[in-house]
Order: sequence, then structure tokens, then C-alpha cells
Amino acid sequence: MSDIIPENSVGIVTPETLFFDEPLELACGRTLPSYQLVIETYGELNSDKSNAILICHALSGHHHAAGYHSNEDKKPGWWENHIGPGKPFDTNRFFIVCPNNLGGCHGSTGPNSINPETDKPWGLDFPPLRVRDWVESQARLADQLGIYQWAAVAGGSLGGMQAMRWALEYPDRLRHAIVIASAMKLSAQNIAFNEIARNAIKSDPDFRDGHFLEDKTLPRNGLALARMIGHVTYLSDELMGNKFGRELRSGSFQQGQDTPIEFQVESYLRHQGDAFSSSFDANTYLLMTKALDYFDLAREYGNDPVKAFSNALCDFLVVSFSTDWRFAPERSQEIVKALIDAKKNVSYAAIESNLGHDAFLLPNERYEHVLRAYFSRLPNDAPNISQAGSTPPEVLS
Amino acid sequence: MSDIIPENSVGIVTPETLFFDEPLELACGRTLPSYQLVIETYGELNSDKSNAILICHALSGHHHAAGYHSNEDKKPGWWENHIGPGKPFDTNRFFIVCPNNLGGCHGSTGPNSINPETDKPWGLDFPPLRVRDWVESQARLADQLGIYQWAAVAGGSLGGMQAMRWALEYPDRLRHAIVIASAMKLSAQNIAFNEIARNAIKSDPDFRDGHFLEDKTLPRNGLALARMIGHVTYLSDELMGNKFGRELRSGSFQQGQDTPIEFQVESYLRHQGDAFSSSFDANTYLLMTKALDYFDLAREYGNDPVKAFSNALCDFLVVSFSTDWRFAPERSQEIVKALIDAKKNVSYAAIESNLGHDAFLLPNERYEHVLRAYFSRLPNDAPNISQAGSTPPEVLS
Repeated sequence: MSDIIPENSVGIVTPETLFFDEPLELACGRTLPSYQLVIETYGELNSDKSNAILICHALSGHHHAAGYHSNEDKKPGWWENHIGPGKPFDTNRFFIVCPNNLGGCHGSTGPNSINPETDKPWGLDFPPLRVRDWVESQARLADQLGIYQWAAVAGGSLGGMQAMRWALEYPDRLRHAIVIASAMKLSAQNIAFNEIARNAIKSDPDFRDGHFLEDKTLPRNGLALARMIGHVTYLSDELMGNKFGRELRSGSFQQGQDTPIEFQVESYLRHQGDAFSSSFDANTYLLMTKALDYFDLAREYGNDPVKAFSNALCDFLVVSFSTDWRFAPERSQEIVKALIDAKKNVSYAAIESNLGHDAFLLPNERYEHVLRAYFSRLPNDAPNISQAGSTPPEVLS
Repeated sequence: MSDIIPENSVGIVTPETLFFDEPLELACGRTLPSYQLVIETYGELNSDKSNAILICHALSGHHHAAGYHSNEDKKPGWWENHIGPGKPFDTNRFFIVCPNNLGGCHGSTGPNSINPETDKPWGLDFPPLRVRDWVESQARLADQLGIYQWAAVAGGSLGGMQAMRWALEYPDRLRHAIVIASAMKLSAQNIAFNEIARNAIKSDPDFRDGHFLEDKTLPRNGLALARMIGHVTYLSDELMGNKFGRELRSGSFQQGQDTPIEFQVESYLRHQGDAFSSSFDANTYLLMTKALDYFDLAREYGNDPVKAFSNALCDFLVVSFSTDWRFAPERSQEIVKALIDAKKNVSYAAIESNLGHDAFLLPNERYEHVLRAYFSRLPNDAPNISQAGSTPPEVLS
């Protein structure tokens, strides 16, 4: 808890709920007749509405990216170290918008909302979503806010996929795409980890075929297992070694085969899993991981990422982290290569970090410097979208 | 199925069961009053009983390392490509012994044996085992076979840990330790993956606190999940990419959030998990992964592996595989460094392979060449244990 909220925080923030009555046609062929999105905004929209930045969250994220919900709030939003006055996403300059994605479980319409046709929670009947559906719903969000062109669309991991899809679907509606720790498509290994996590959830007898809310149960064990799998793979081996080593919880072996927890790392994981299973919706977890698996930037461009990116008009910043093995630097380099070949303006920063994939969420001096340097060069006024240049990529230092 | 068993196979083999009536004191402080071990042997023990090699199996292994159980047998033993006439473990020269480990589920005394005190299956009440308990039981096996000194003790992964422990516990009872894709201790990440697998098993309501056999159930879902986690981590990202890519099972997206299986890799994993859950015992899986986690070669030597290895009298061959990320080459190099510093004879081979940890089980020309070259230099007669030399390690090519 923060008795005194730091001066470089956006301070106390209040989420807003926006309603959308126009039916949304989804990639799966189904239609959502209406929906709501919960958002947070930080900073002020300028008079010509040209200084807005859209932040897209990742698998387990939400709209609360910065600030505190009250003076008693124990922790700030998930990108507090990046968003605020004087921070890389500088709220003295920019108007930052962060929605909870459609299908989420933090207030936007999703599996635990009421299905108007049945008057019961959607559960697993909620339509499957693709990254493009989020982009479409975010475009309508921009319309409702009166923003035609984002100064930037930014996100890490699944959020980076949304930024890339924005650049392809609405090329004239963003000037910069910030793609952090992401990939043009998941590897088979990544899909496999997601599949195991989904299996863990569905194997939990309390999952009840996705209708656990109706049955007033929660598949806590399954969701905790899913989170534990994700968590281990989002950390680096080195970090886990530094953080836990082989420390025993009690200082010595308990020797019991059924002793539940002996190593500190087990205790930590169990805590992470249990905490997550109380705060996240199992059907949303299934939906988000499926959206990750499905994402394939170039699939409808003949599997040619250069052709895919040729539509883009914005500039790109691509960032990767050295020990991220689920969204490895090579995946970012593939994005950069495709952008170069498509003659787009791209800056690439390969950040040294021992924090694995989670590095994109955590403090890192060079990472912050790269983001700050990138934004510091953007003009304060609002140019029209620049024509895609053919300048070679610049490596930020 | 093999209509004609290949000429370089050991052919049809029959497991034997050996009984041990002398109580076995275990590292946990408990005692097994008696036990049995199922073993297979290949080749002939020579007159002075000096040509025996002990093969130690890994997590999910067993005594059936080579040959076929019948002409109708669909597949041979798990190390068929290494063991046989003219193969690296050449049965024309050596007498190969492979037991199912104590605590296993393929005929040796373990959790699904009957506890004489209750007349019910041991289940989770079976004593927890450490690698040293296996070494002790294998020493008694050697006694019963009349073998004082093994020509070599060899194993991959958890099997390599047994080979190292042999070198420390019974230094004069082996001439060579073959340590493949192993480690002196697991990393926190490795322990974490094991812990998640154990959680998956224990969360299955059919686990019944480890007494599922009494209740005539099997925790199939939990064991399948555990296997899937293990399986993904034992393969390399590259191999999975080559093998499955992002191929869709049906050729196109099904779009259903609850469509169970869409990518080929999911189908493959599900099959692996299901097959394993029908053939392996959940309590044995818990026991084996705990033995892996507990193993810490140097723990009782002041955490100094050089001091630990200073007891050893045998020569060592250490082998690692380039894309093995659960028992990474660095772990093997730590073993080699400690052996060098302890002035032991050690040969090290770093094998290029895209097969991940599973490479130690699979055909690989250079791997076979290294093993063959190592054994080809051993004398056919039976020297007494050589004094530990101080020759620098040799890299096999």
C-alpha cells in the first residue's frame, strides 16, 4: 500500500465503461449484438485529438495499466513503470487509453457476462475471438472517443500482436506501432504449452464444460495449474535460479513423498497459481490462449510477412529481451526483417535482461531508455500519417 | 511389429525377477523388509565376471532396454539402438544388466506392490526414494549376480545421476561411469516443471490421495497432463517446429473455442499423454520426480563437487546434447569441470542434435560413434580398478 502515491504516478484513476450498440461481426462468423468495454485513460486528449496512445494488454492483463484505484490500493497498474508524467509513455504529452479486451474478465463483455439469449453467463458459449476482433472493437472505441488516428498503438506479447494487426487493418489510423516481446506467430512449442494449460483447466471436474458459474463452482485447481505452467515458461531459468536456487522451505529435506511443498520455488509457484485462480476467469484464459495460438500475421497474405506488412503506413519500434524463450529475440528479428524487406521504418532494440518473457512488464533501465528515446523524437504536434519511408532500420542505443 | 527381428538385435528376451530378503535401509530412515527387482540381461557374463555393464533407466524407463519380448512385439527396448551385437554396448563383448528401479511400476517392488503390513497396495505410502537407494539396491543386485566390479555403469538423465552416485558410493565397484544428458543437481526451473506435473496428478480427483488402486480408479487425466508437460520440455522448440509447425489437424481453423484439438501438435501431445496414463503408475511418477529433485551430488560434501568426486576411482564419459534445455550442455560441463579439478580421467562429448533432452534415447550417428569409440578402447580382459589418473580430459571426435 502506498501511503503517499509517488509524484511520477498518474495517481488515483477510475475505470469507465463504454457501451457499443452496433453489432460486431466476429472473425468466427458469429455476431455480438452489443458489448461493453471497460477502459482507463491517463493524461489529456489534445484539441485535435492527435496525442492518443492505445495500450493493448497481454494474456492475463486488463485495463488497469497505471495509477492506483484508491489511496488504500496495494499495488499500481501493470505498466506503472512506463506510464505517467515524465515516464516513457509521458502523460504530460500523451493521452493514454487502455481497454480491457473483449472476452476479458475485468468488466468488458466476456464469458462471465450474461448471454442475453439465455439470461445465464456465457461461459464457454462465448464466441471465440481472434486478434482482429480486438482491433475492430478498439477501432470503435477510438471512434467513440473521437480519435481518428492513434499517435501509437503499443503492447507486449499478445499486445504486440494487436499492434501489428492494427498496422495491417487500419494503416492510416496509427502513426507508430510499438511491438514488444512478440511474434508473427507462435511456435509449435508455444502452442503445446498453451494446450497443456487448457487441458489442465478442462480436466478440472469443477470446470463443468465451461458452465461453472451456473453451477456456482470455480475450476481453481485447473486454472492454478495453467497459471503455473505459464509462469514458469515466462521466467528465465537463470532468474528462477537466482531467485530460488534449490532452497528448501524448511531448511532440510522432509523426506516424505507426499510432503506437498519442500523447495521454495514450489511454494512460490503454488502461491502464484492460487492467487491467479481466485482473480481470473477460466473461460477467458481459454479464449486468450486460443487467440494467441490462432494469430498468424501473414496467413492470409500467402504466408508472406513482407506482403502483409506492405499495407502498413506507420513506423515500428520492435523490442526483444535476451532470455525470453517463449517469444525469443529471433521472433522479433523476423518481424524486423520482414519490415525492412517491406521498406518500412523500423527501429529495433534487443534488451539484455535475465527476466525472461516477463521482462516486458518489469523495470529495466535500458528498456525504459529505448521507449523514452523513441517517443522523445516524436513531434508534439499531429502530423498526418507520414508516407512509409524506406530508411534502413536504426538500432537504438 | 517386426516380422523378422533385425540381426543386430539381442532378439527375444525374457525378464527375470530377483528377490532380496535382507532389509534395505533407505535414505529416508525407513526400511524395506524385502523387495524384488525385475531385470533383463543381454550377452554373456564372462568367467571372471568382469564384463558386466549396468544400465540405469530414467524417469519413465524400465528394465526392457533392448530386444523384443516376442515375435509379435511391436517395438524393441528403449535403448535398442545402443545395445546389441556390434552396437556401442556390444553384447558380443559385454554382459548388460538393466533393472527396473525400486519404486518403479514394471514389476519391481513399488507403490503398486502389496504392502505386507496392510495387504493393500502401498500407493502413496511407499517410502520416498533417493538415487542412493537405487545404487544400494543395484549393489545388492550385483552381489546376487556374483559381479563385484561393473565394467561400466551407464545412464541418461536420472540414469546418469545413478552412475555418478555409484562412483561416489562404491568407487571400487565400477571402472567407468557413462553420464549422459545429466546434471549434478536440478535447476529451480526443472524442479518447478516437476512440481507442476506432481500438482497435475494430485489435483486429479481420481488420485484419491494416492490410493486410487484400492478405489479401482486411475488418475488418468492428471498423469496425462504430467506427461504432456514433461514431453514438451524434453523436446526442443526446433524439433517441435520441424515435426508439427503450425499444421492444422483439419486443414482450417474450426473457430470453436471449445473445439478440443486443432493443431497437429495438440493431437500428438494428447496421444502421448493418454498412452502414458494407461501404462505408468502415478505414484511412481511422483516418486521418480522427487528423486530427481532431491538429487544433489555435492550436498553432503559441503556443496563442493570437486570434493565429492575426489572419492571416485573410475573413468568418466560425459555426453550432452546441444538443444537439451532441461539438462543443458552447461550442466554436463559443470560435471566435467569438477572431474578435471578432482584430477579424474574424463572424456566429454558435446553432441549436436535438434532433438532436445530426448536425444539421449534416439539414434544419432555421432552419439553412437562416441559411445562405440569409448568402449572400443576398453581392454577385453578385466583389469583391477586403475588408480585415478590425472590426465587432462580428452574431447572425443
